[in-house]
Amino acid sequence: MAAVVKICNQYSVPFIARGSGTGLSGGALPSEDSVLIVTSLMRQILSVDLDNQRIIVQPGVINSWVTQTVSGAGFYYAPDPSSQIICSIGGNVAENSGGVHCLKYGVTTNHVLGLKIVTPEGEIVDLGGQIPESPGYDLTGIFVGSEGTLGIATEITLRILKSAESICVLLADFTSVEAAGATVSDIISAGIIPGGMEMMDNVSINAVEDVVATNCYPRDATAILLVEIDGLEVEVAVNKQRVIDICKQNGARSVTSASDPEMRLKLWKGRKAAFAAAGHLSPDYYVQDGVIPRTQLPYVLQEIEVLSQKFGYPIANVFHAGDGNLHPLILFDNAIPGALEKVEELGGEILKLCVRVGGSISGEHGIGADKKCYMPDMFSDADLETMQWVRQVFNPQGLANPGKIFPTPRTCGEAANVANHKQLEGVERF
Amino acid sequence: MAAVVKICNQYSVPFIARGSGTGLSGGALPSEDSVLIVTSLMRQILSVDLDNQRIIVQPGVINSWVTQTVSGAGFYYAPDPSSQIICSIGGNVAENSGGVHCLKYGVTTNHVLGLKIVTPEGEIVDLGGQIPESPGYDLTGIFVGSEGTLGIATEITLRILKSAESICVLLADFTSVEAAGATVSDIISAGIIPGGMEMMDNVSINAVEDVVATNCYPRDATAILLVEIDGLEVEVAVNKQRVIDICKQNGARSVTSASDPEMRLKLWKGRKAAFAAAGHLSPDYYVQDGVIPRTQLPYVLQEIEVLSQKFGYPIANVFHAGDGNLHPLILFDNAIPGALEKVEELGGEILKLCVRVGGSISGEHGIGADKKCYMPDMFSDADLETMQWVRQVFNPQGLANPGKIFPTPRTCGEAANVANHKQLEGVERF
Ligand SMILES: Cc1cc2nc3c(=O)[nH]c(=O)nc-3n(C[C@H](O)[C@H](O)[C@H](O)COP(=O)(O)OP(=O)(O)OC[C@H]3O[C@@H](n4cnc5c(N)ncnc54)[C@H](O)[C@@H]3O)c2cc1C
Ligand SMILES: Cc1cc2nc3c(=O)[nH]c(=O)nc-3n(C[C@H](O)[C@H](O)[C@H](O)COP(=O)(O)OP(=O)(O)OC[C@H]3O[C@@H](n4cnc5c(N)ncnc54)[C@H](O)[C@@H]3O)c2cc1C
Repeated sequence: MAAVVKICNQYSVPFIARGSGTGLSGGALPSEDSVLIVTSLMRQILSVDLDNQRIIVQPGVINSWVTQTVSGAGFYYAPDPSSQIICSIGGNVAENSGGVHCLKYGVTTNHVLGLKIVTPEGEIVDLGGQIPESPGYDLTGIFVGSEGTLGIATEITLRILKSAESICVLLADFTSVEAAGATVSDIISAGIIPGGMEMMDNVSINAVEDVVATNCYPRDATAILLVEIDGLEVEVAVNKQRVIDICKQNGARSVTSASDPEMRLKLWKGRKAAFAAAGHLSPDYYVQDGVIPRTQLPYVLQEIEVLSQKFGYPIANVFHAGDGNLHPLILFDNAIPGALEKVEELGGEILKLCVRVGGSISGEHGIGADKKCYMPDMFSDADLETMQWVRQVFNPQGLANPGKIFPTPRTCGEAANVANHKQLEGVERF
Repeated sequence: MAAVVKICNQYSVPFIARGSGTGLSGGALPSEDSVLIVTSLMRQILSVDLDNQRIIVQPGVINSWVTQTVSGAGFYYAPDPSSQIICSIGGNVAENSGGVHCLKYGVTTNHVLGLKIVTPEGEIVDLGGQIPESPGYDLTGIFVGSEGTLGIATEITLRILKSAESICVLLADFTSVEAAGATVSDIISAGIIPGGMEMMDNVSINAVEDVVATNCYPRDATAILLVEIDGLEVEVAVNKQRVIDICKQNGARSVTSASDPEMRLKLWKGRKAAFAAAGHLSPDYYVQDGVIPRTQLPYVLQEIEVLSQKFGYPIANVFHAGDGNLHPLILFDNAIPGALEKVEELGGEILKLCVRVGGSISGEHGIGADKKCYMPDMFSDADLETMQWVRQVFNPQGLANPGKIFPTPRTCGEAANVANHKQLEGVERF
């Protein structure tokens, strides 16, 4: 890896790391002629240390393999993107990926202890270490989520957790989105942190029932909540009852529960297949990814409905409700000229709405190429400038994944000018 | 704050942020003539948002005030250094401080959502935000633990947690350190994550009994373990029994338990007073701070005993056992010429031992001025160089807390040469 990167430097050719190519913000797509460095031959588990709860893997290792490797001994790897059977750990690190279980256990950055990276100039550097806290600057933390712009991860030390003694999944059926949203807030306010808490709206429910037929999701529900509770058996029993009570108090028509592994998987199956199912509803769909403070859920869902009406495109809503991480799926037909542009505009309006209520333009899918023009909506020039100075440190020649994350005047127009001006100044100074 | 920093820049005068001055690695001590910017007049709680579980504070706010502010509503701020009734949140952020409850809930960096900082050039920049995940580089993460070298935090958004329904503290009494160490491993292996798990050796036990007279710590124990269990009432009941069983299996002579708040405080009182009590054992003492993988506990304690014998200074051991974070207290008399140098050498040997077994030269007290010469024991030249480039980005003139974290040839000799050479090169390029 270091040799390849050095050669790229020698000839000033940009390069882009690529794991499994499941990224949803165009991060692994070249924006100019580049060498694509695909990690799919780097799929070794390098070491497993159960006593100290850590595992070292190569970047091409598939997310779900990590849990598979340690589950026999009663451990698991917590971050579980819906794409987990195909996406790579290297990609997860680059995107700081989340998943259903990240509400309770934290996203990727909370599970990466250390990294070996090849810097954009081809040097091999160790960041962090084998234990949770390392002195000096937290460069591991800055690398996680940097979307391939600060170098390529070649060895990743992950923290693994002990599997819970007991797990229960609840499915609550609501006749209004507001009620489901209020339930989410009430569960958290009660001090219960579910292993996962996901919401799906009527459109998504029907889409997944059409495609994967769980036969568990009520087709006439306005919204469902999936709540996973894990812990000691006694703890799960008590929290299960508390969650059921809260759902009922908020008007849930019914609450189904599943404790045996097969039935639990069945309840989750629809949620995990939601993106794929959207593809059956409509010739094309556009996944948006934004975050809002949990308390703004009902308001924001209403506003999304207003935008959907205004633009004339149906929107299916699936989201990590506990984290306030929305995934509106905009349904459209790309064969109709001009549709994609309209949909992108609608997607942008949703992001601006998220920022307006104090949220973020990306929850877990990154900025990549797709969202870089929205960065100035969230960050001031000084903020963006500071990030770009950090980029210069690692990536002085700008060869590692150029054209990502930061706004450029060519694609974003005026908004990018100030930040970009500084970036160019940076290039000269180095 | 920004105005003061700008004036310092104008006259090229170094400046150092200072909170309460409780830091244990000399971070807030000027190494050359400097302006000391003390945050003790910035003690306002700026906003409290219980629904979204966050609070915004000024940097001079004292750690324990945060919990005091929200405890009436059933919330608390998790990181609780033993110095919590006096240290500032700004200092906590700069040192990425830990405490008894960080085993289960994570250190400061896991609880800082966003920061407003004054950069070393006097600009005001926002890092992170009001919600847990923010796109772009994780500059909040890099600022936390940067020991005042990347700027001064002026507003800090903290995550607050819901108080547990039930809490129980256990005190287990062992006749060997190995048995206590094995108990720690067994508890974690059983999948129990205590709210806190602390170990004290015989010397420390007697020191605190002499000084604060808890009358609970058995003076003839070779080691005691303090284990706090929190959660639902049912959960605490089950885990309490499991922990008692594990202690007994490992030969604990007795296990005392306390559930009511007053008695719990009494059990913790000795641990919290351990550093202060050491001051009564001996005219002077030197606190060391290192981390080891948990499984190395018994071996490392044995080696520390060997070093104590070899150098001829008694060592009291107090530590965050669950995290493998050691705090050996070396007892000596500074009036004896040459003693301090000997003790510093002994402290250094302990750090090298930590690194040798795969640990770290600092758990929570930072590098500051005291440990910078040990950085090359843990990091390669390329690693240190990368950190120093990041420092240059924020701190191009080197005015913010100079002479900290990174080795310098004047104080560290040869070891510092490579890293420092690059640093100087960096200064020129900017
Ligand atoms: C159906 C579906 C469901 C999804 N669900 C989720 C979800 O629940 N949560 C979630 O967070 N995401 C989700 N995603 C998005 C995606 O799976 C994640 O972002 C994933 O981490 C990408 O991994 P990858 O290996 O496919 O990376 P790629 O797409 O190959 O690359 C993504 C980025 O990572 C960089 N990169 C790859 N490898 C490295 C490396 N070794 N070092 C440095 N940079 C590298 C690339 O340059 C690129 O910028 C989903 C995607 C799909 C298609
Ligand atoms: C008895 C005792 C017990 C202790 N127990 C613990 C413990 O359990 N866990 C633990 O982690 N530590 C512990 N400490 C160490 C110390 O209390 C912590 O490091 C604490 O966070 C320092 O806070 P302070 O306000 O005193 O900072 P100071 O000592 O004033 O400063 C420490 C560093 O922070 C920087 N700084 C201060 N304010 C700012 C700001 N606003 N912006 C940027 N940089 C800033 C300073 O420049 C300096 O480098 C203990 C100390 C004592 C004396």
